[in-house]
Amino acid sequence: MSATNAGASSEPLLIRGGRIITTTENRVADVLVEGERITAIGEDLPAGQARELDARGLLVLPGCVDPHVHLDTDFGGAKTVDDFTNGTAAAAIGGTTTLINFAMQWPGQTLAQALDAWKGQIEEHPPIVDVGLHMAITDLDYAGSFDELDAITRGGIPSYKVFTAYKGSAMLSDDDLLRVMESAAANDVLVMVHAENGDIVDLLQRRALEQGHTEPRWHAATRPALAEAEATSRVIDIAHLAGASLYVVHVSCAASLERIANARAKGWRVWGETCPQYLFTDESDLERPDFEGAKYVFSPPPRTPADQEALWEGLADGVLSVVATDHVPFTFARDKQLGRDDFSAIPNGAPGIENRLQLMHHFGVRAGRFDLHRMVDLLSTTPARIFGLHPRKGTIAVGADADLVLFDPQRRHTICAATQVSHSDYSLMEGVEVVGSPTLVTVRGRIVVEDGRVVGRPGDGAYVSRAPFDPAAADAPGQPLAVDG
Amino acid sequence: MSATNAGASSEPLLIRGGRIITTTENRVADVLVEGERITAIGEDLPAGQARELDARGLLVLPGCVDPHVHLDTDFGGAKTVDDFTNGTAAAAIGGTTTLINFAMQWPGQTLAQALDAWKGQIEEHPPIVDVGLHMAITDLDYAGSFDELDAITRGGIPSYKVFTAYKGSAMLSDDDLLRVMESAAANDVLVMVHAENGDIVDLLQRRALEQGHTEPRWHAATRPALAEAEATSRVIDIAHLAGASLYVVHVSCAASLERIANARAKGWRVWGETCPQYLFTDESDLERPDFEGAKYVFSPPPRTPADQEALWEGLADGVLSVVATDHVPFTFARDKQLGRDDFSAIPNGAPGIENRLQLMHHFGVRAGRFDLHRMVDLLSTTPARIFGLHPRKGTIAVGADADLVLFDPQRRHTICAATQVSHSDYSLMEGVEVVGSPTLVTVRGRIVVEDGRVVGRPGDGAYVSRAPFDPAAADAPGQPLAVDG
Amino acid sequence: MSATNAGASSEPLLIRGGRIITTTENRVADVLVEGERITAIGEDLPAGQARELDARGLLVLPGCVDPHVHLDTDFGGAKTVDDFTNGTAAAAIGGTTTLINFAMQWPGQTLAQALDAWKGQIEEHPPIVDVGLHMAITDLDYAGSFDELDAITRGGIPSYKVFTAYKGSAMLSDDDLLRVMESAAANDVLVMVHAENGDIVDLLQRRALEQGHTEPRWHAATRPALAEAEATSRVIDIAHLAGASLYVVHVSCAASLERIANARAKGWRVWGETCPQYLFTDESDLERPDFEGAKYVFSPPPRTPADQEALWEGLADGVLSVVATDHVPFTFARDKQLGRDDFSAIPNGAPGIENRLQLMHHFGVRAGRFDLHRMVDLLSTTPARIFGLHPRKGTIAVGADADLVLFDPQRRHTICAATQVSHSDYSLMEGVEVVGSPTLVTVRGRIVVEDGRVVGRPGDGAYVSRAPFDPAAADAPGQPLAVDG
Amino acid sequence: MSATNAGASSEPLLIRGGRIITTTENRVADVLVEGERITAIGEDLPAGQARELDARGLLVLPGCVDPHVHLDTDFGGAKTVDDFTNGTAAAAIGGTTTLINFAMQWPGQTLAQALDAWKGQIEEHPPIVDVGLHMAITDLDYAGSFDELDAITRGGIPSYKVFTAYKGSAMLSDDDLLRVMESAAANDVLVMVHAENGDIVDLLQRRALEQGHTEPRWHAATRPALAEAEATSRVIDIAHLAGASLYVVHVSCAASLERIANARAKGWRVWGETCPQYLFTDESDLERPDFEGAKYVFSPPPRTPADQEALWEGLADGVLSVVATDHVPFTFARDKQLGRDDFSAIPNGAPGIENRLQLMHHFGVRAGRFDLHRMVDLLSTTPARIFGLHPRKGTIAVGADADLVLFDPQRRHTICAATQVSHSDYSLMEGVEVVGSPTLVTVRGRIVVEDGRVVGRPGDGAYVSRAPFDPAAADAPGQPLAVDG
Repeated sequence: MSATNAGASSEPLLIRGGRIITTTENRVADVLVEGERITAIGEDLPAGQARELDARGLLVLPGCVDPHVHLDTDFGGAKTVDDFTNGTAAAAIGGTTTLINFAMQWPGQTLAQALDAWKGQIEEHPPIVDVGLHMAITDLDYAGSFDELDAITRGGIPSYKVFTAYKGSAMLSDDDLLRVMESAAANDVLVMVHAENGDIVDLLQRRALEQGHTEPRWHAATRPALAEAEATSRVIDIAHLAGASLYVVHVSCAASLERIANARAKGWRVWGETCPQYLFTDESDLERPDFEGAKYVFSPPPRTPADQEALWEGLADGVLSVVATDHVPFTFARDKQLGRDDFSAIPNGAPGIENRLQLMHHFGVRAGRFDLHRMVDLLSTTPARIFGLHPRKGTIAVGADADLVLFDPQRRHTICAATQVSHSDYSLMEGVEVVGSPTLVTVRGRIVVEDGRVVGRPGDGAYVSRAPFDPAAADAPGQPLAVDG
Repeated sequence: MSATNAGASSEPLLIRGGRIITTTENRVADVLVEGERITAIGEDLPAGQARELDARGLLVLPGCVDPHVHLDTDFGGAKTVDDFTNGTAAAAIGGTTTLINFAMQWPGQTLAQALDAWKGQIEEHPPIVDVGLHMAITDLDYAGSFDELDAITRGGIPSYKVFTAYKGSAMLSDDDLLRVMESAAANDVLVMVHAENGDIVDLLQRRALEQGHTEPRWHAATRPALAEAEATSRVIDIAHLAGASLYVVHVSCAASLERIANARAKGWRVWGETCPQYLFTDESDLERPDFEGAKYVFSPPPRTPADQEALWEGLADGVLSVVATDHVPFTFARDKQLGRDDFSAIPNGAPGIENRLQLMHHFGVRAGRFDLHRMVDLLSTTPARIFGLHPRKGTIAVGADADLVLFDPQRRHTICAATQVSHSDYSLMEGVEVVGSPTLVTVRGRIVVEDGRVVGRPGDGAYVSRAPFDPAAADAPGQPLAVDG
Repeated sequence: MSATNAGASSEPLLIRGGRIITTTENRVADVLVEGERITAIGEDLPAGQARELDARGLLVLPGCVDPHVHLDTDFGGAKTVDDFTNGTAAAAIGGTTTLINFAMQWPGQTLAQALDAWKGQIEEHPPIVDVGLHMAITDLDYAGSFDELDAITRGGIPSYKVFTAYKGSAMLSDDDLLRVMESAAANDVLVMVHAENGDIVDLLQRRALEQGHTEPRWHAATRPALAEAEATSRVIDIAHLAGASLYVVHVSCAASLERIANARAKGWRVWGETCPQYLFTDESDLERPDFEGAKYVFSPPPRTPADQEALWEGLADGVLSVVATDHVPFTFARDKQLGRDDFSAIPNGAPGIENRLQLMHHFGVRAGRFDLHRMVDLLSTTPARIFGLHPRKGTIAVGADADLVLFDPQRRHTICAATQVSHSDYSLMEGVEVVGSPTLVTVRGRIVVEDGRVVGRPGDGAYVSRAPFDPAAADAPGQPLAVDG
Repeated sequence: MSATNAGASSEPLLIRGGRIITTTENRVADVLVEGERITAIGEDLPAGQARELDARGLLVLPGCVDPHVHLDTDFGGAKTVDDFTNGTAAAAIGGTTTLINFAMQWPGQTLAQALDAWKGQIEEHPPIVDVGLHMAITDLDYAGSFDELDAITRGGIPSYKVFTAYKGSAMLSDDDLLRVMESAAANDVLVMVHAENGDIVDLLQRRALEQGHTEPRWHAATRPALAEAEATSRVIDIAHLAGASLYVVHVSCAASLERIANARAKGWRVWGETCPQYLFTDESDLERPDFEGAKYVFSPPPRTPADQEALWEGLADGVLSVVATDHVPFTFARDKQLGRDDFSAIPNGAPGIENRLQLMHHFGVRAGRFDLHRMVDLLSTTPARIFGLHPRKGTIAVGADADLVLFDPQRRHTICAATQVSHSDYSLMEGVEVVGSPTLVTVRGRIVVEDGRVVGRPGDGAYVSRAPFDPAAADAPGQPLAVDG
């Protein structure tokens, strides 16, 4: 992992008297930051040349890692409205110091061309937090595709994304899935999957439209939970057949969760992610009047309260490993209107990058669903481990990158599209008040958020190259995934 | 169910002093047969006009039902060598009094055309035991296909067969599978599935051939167990999504068994079948010299000894419900030679219709794996229940069809292709000696096997129309499938 | 098993046109009874000398077997008010044709003395239905006790009863339990256990009384479900250690059920019984005013509605094998008053022998919880199998004892202590109307109930000697208990 | 927790360049120790006044915690040969910086008297590492016993020990167990249990001796695994009934492990410990010639290789939480000879306190059974958490006690009774060579082992008072025990 940012070196910082929270520790101590990294943790450390920051009464958290983001991305006829500068500003304000964006391969592009284009987008709009890329594969039917793939992964991108959904566009056939899995197994790469049965969704969508059903609620009706669970099982099997490791993105329902739990109980290498929208919205939101249901059109769709409950349990009991955002910032005023007359034409996705930490603190920790340590694990440590960023990111320790969040557990904040950093014009959580917010955020020692406002400059963040996937390091020690016999 | 056979009425029979074995009873008594049915069971029944048959020392079993047979069928470039007359003679000698053949829909045929053609084949070669048909669906892409399907099922064919294997020919897409399942759920039809992932098998076959691997053993290497388990899970999910009931044919491996067990534990309506070839042969048989491995080319392929053991346990503990034969009689001398230079061109299938009862008695009951009651259940009662033949078939009771097997539990028999009734020129069990064989078999009161020789005439059997599928009746009472909550 | 009754031979009967229900069959046929046994089942059987009984529209069920009865028994300061003549009359009216009573060993008696005394009680009050005995062991601390036990079991009593409850009286220590289990394993005997932790119950009772809690509801409060579950687990372990087979009587709660299910899943030889009182009454009944709660004082106590639901599920899914009555007929007017000032002095027990079949038909079958076949299994076939009475009892088949119940599924009956046969002055089900009642009952061909009234005479029933316990025969074929590996 | 040691203050230490291993971290850094605690962790920390220790190439581990020790204890007719000074020296050399001894209540003593006596023993032989006490309860049958218990726990002893074994001496009845559990639940105390069924063991021992079986191998034959599993289940139930938390000491067999796993899966508060002797010796060791089998007489007895394997899996998968030693140092030459003619008279126990870390490193980590993090968890962090010592002990963090082990992962050591610190004259692991040993050990900043030799003085260690038991803190965060619903 190397930072390409060439900005001026950051000044030393001494964070004084905060309560340091990691996955295992909860202690008051000082943290000294020099030259992008943490160089000491101690009691009453001497300040020396360092600028002192008073963290008394605050939590000091490792910067959050968001591995599921779609900035500056064309999707279903629209383009997401946050570029890498603005999107990473939104990430920063929410306590996220590293995000990983999907480098989608568009029709007609080779994988290498796609990746170059994505790196260009990052250069064009320099980020404020660190940014990595996943290679999202949609077409392998050209000469040399697998050779390109090998080169890409050796170049610091140890994660592929594939789709079983979106028949006719991103969806891969089962034989292509197997080929990707084989490549991943050979290259120490993790395969991420969007698991819904594209064939079945396509049939149900066509049938609904033929019957004149055009409203947003048909988005959920044509994407049944069992179609997600089926695809989840299928890809788990194909990955295991190939000896590959699998990460199931945006798990939305109890049925899929069951499949992941079964595989993990057998010692298969499978990890699951969910997102706040699956914990806080349900299918009834799609029925909101005045076409507002379109705001809740993302895939998989919101499910039922029982599914929400199952996901919370999955976060607490370890079946799920990560909470990411699947931030897909469209506007309601313009982008979502594309599907006024046809739910299947509504661009899929919703914003969310800047409220993840607040929501998990308020509704997770304060509500007693899990503790601060588990919150840090789900938002920072485990995503850093899984995606080749640990031990430089994902924890607070001597030698680690100084990606830090000073978090005021009492500070109140009302979520509101009008005041959010993202350029999307709505929020799924509009009007919700949470207790607890970041006040100051550093990225490799540079202060990018101060007093709850973005102060970072483009280029404070950098593109990060990541280490090869290592299943033994993907979970915290002491929670080893059982080995398949 | 109505018999269309117009033959002369059978004479009354009094089967004297045999030991009647049903799924629950084991008692010595006389059985009186009048006018095709059992009219009394008792001690020292008066003979009246009936011909007396001395069954002392013999078991009296309900005639076996074989729900998985391919007579007179074009398959992969060859045609199975037993027509409905000869094939049912082979069934009879083995104690099978009803078989159900697959009515395959060939390219260019509508379903109705296919069914008419199959009924014509039966009329052309009148059977010696009763014969039913399953509708095997391979093409729904024509106007009126589903209307035809409805008519067919209302006409006494309450079971469809679909394939996830055989990409490019019989394989259905997932959306077509869903449409078939929905039709089945609406029509009280059971869906039978050959579950292997056709996409994956096709990829592996092409790759093997590209690498110059042409020998029979590559048949197994390109059809991994997990590709069967995956397809099994997938079709279970699609069936459940549609509210349909599912019957998984020829389960070959522990991995598939696990999926069926999980679904049944959740109360989902799934039943599993295995066949003797999966209990007695394994993948090493494909390596037999002089191309003899080709005899063992059937799909799914033979697996490992551990899979055999798992299947035996599945038969004993109830995860599996039926032992059928998947009788696909090709010749080694001619048909199997088609694949001399390309394992994928070897016609898939093997004979087996006439030894099922002997093998289950010898290796199941005598080996202590299950008792006589369970043997009757697996070979007769449960297939009769599942496929709409019970209570007329599948048991010994007053009012039931007089389909009876007198079975000598001490009679020795050596399995040998040279002496078998089937026209296939080989047997998977060549040279195996079993203890216990049928000596006399009746079909609706007509004696079709006597002293171990076929004496029935064409037309002693008849085409049977079957009752709609009823999940509540598919299992024996006292073994209710849990209801899905 | 031999009948000691020397009464006049019964006349032949021809039961015409009833619907015969066994665990697997459901067919209309005639049943011919000659010389105590069924000699033919058929269509339009010739009547010959037999008296014809018109059973059209009625069900013909195998006579029920009640393996848990306490007639003529001293218990906690009172004596049950039904002797073997009256108690068996009550059994008969309810469709029970065989009951098994506990031969309690009283303080000071040897086992042999106890058994002699119990046989004397039967002779003194000759029964109307067949009667067997279990040996209830409370004291082994005398020379020759185990030799006596061996002799008793060889004499046709293949079931012991032991108690972990009732500290200071019937309760055995764990080492005595082990010794009994070893004796049982050596003698092909089944051990029945009343499983509650006597130590814990005793502590809680003493503490409650010290605190001035004397009302009936403290009966339940001092016998927690977990104290039953604990004892259940413990005795399962001790039985398994000794290689013995175990039958847990009157399972009352989900917690115990779980233990039995776990053991059975491991293939351990454990069977569970529940009783109607645990399905229909709950702990709130103990709070009935005017000391009426005392009617519901039996052990284990009534539990919660959730426990009731778990028991119903256990009956449907096979974790439980038998519904018995634990008929302990005390009077409210006299016997229950003994505990006016001290709940622990209330004689434990309640009547119930004559309504079991009605209740299981009405609330089990008619309510859709299980079917007629399973009802017959729970009330007749499985208890006959477990307790060495099958194949003579527990089914309808040629050669079996003619213990038959003609059951009118539409006949209405209101349960009422004033009109019951038992001499108890109350019923737990007072005022409940059920649909479906026995109209005629035979015991070995003798009519003992006709038109819903007892017409049998003392001596129509007889003491029955039973076959050794055989675990392989204890369950219906096709439901083999897994074998411990 | 307060240290009562009044020794001279320790000098500051700077441990330079070691690899710090905690349950989650693995990093090279310096550790600064001032005034008994760790005050800074950092890169290139300034030495100031501190003595520098070169730890390059070494692991820096948190000092191990051994919660299962019997120093200076009368047991079965003999007295363990290590007092608190020598026993803690042996602990120190093995990397253990805190041990918890059982304060046994002897016949005739009240609990308070017993505790006073134990504290006196510690004062008499001042320890070299820190020492806590568990209150081992054997007699509650005196006035005021429970009041005493309350006072003891409020005084810093948040753990009771009870026995279901040793009938006639330490064994408690089930009602006393319940009373102890209730007291524990009310006082935030953890109950530790030695779980074997004392009644059954007593019966089997008496029977064996009556039959003339006197050899050591009868020790195992009379203590069957199922008698341990039964008691484990029983005490789990009683604890749950009382709302108490339970810690099962020295789990020896797969059967017990299963019970603990089941309870934990239900969210019940149960933790399990095993000891090296159950991982490395088996029942065949009891048959060693020349009475050497007597060395392996401890309770529960050594089991089978399959049990060893199950225990290793339990350590890896989290069913077991702690490896302790159950150090019971008797001599073979004198103490074990007491049972020459009667296996039941052999004093139960074996030495082991000084090799735990070496064995877990060599056979656990080096053999690939678990990693260094899990080793630290099992030997230090989790026992510190469970027994009220965390966050001061059990980790390496700023503010924690400076209990540190410098461990050379390449240093070879051959285990040998002749050179061990314990006064026992034998070792269960005689002649075993391990790779990896402690070289330097500190207790609150005092160096007690240097260059592999004990340099600590009596009084360097101190009696530690512990915090109340907190189930939420007992496991590492991120591994929350499920909450019982």
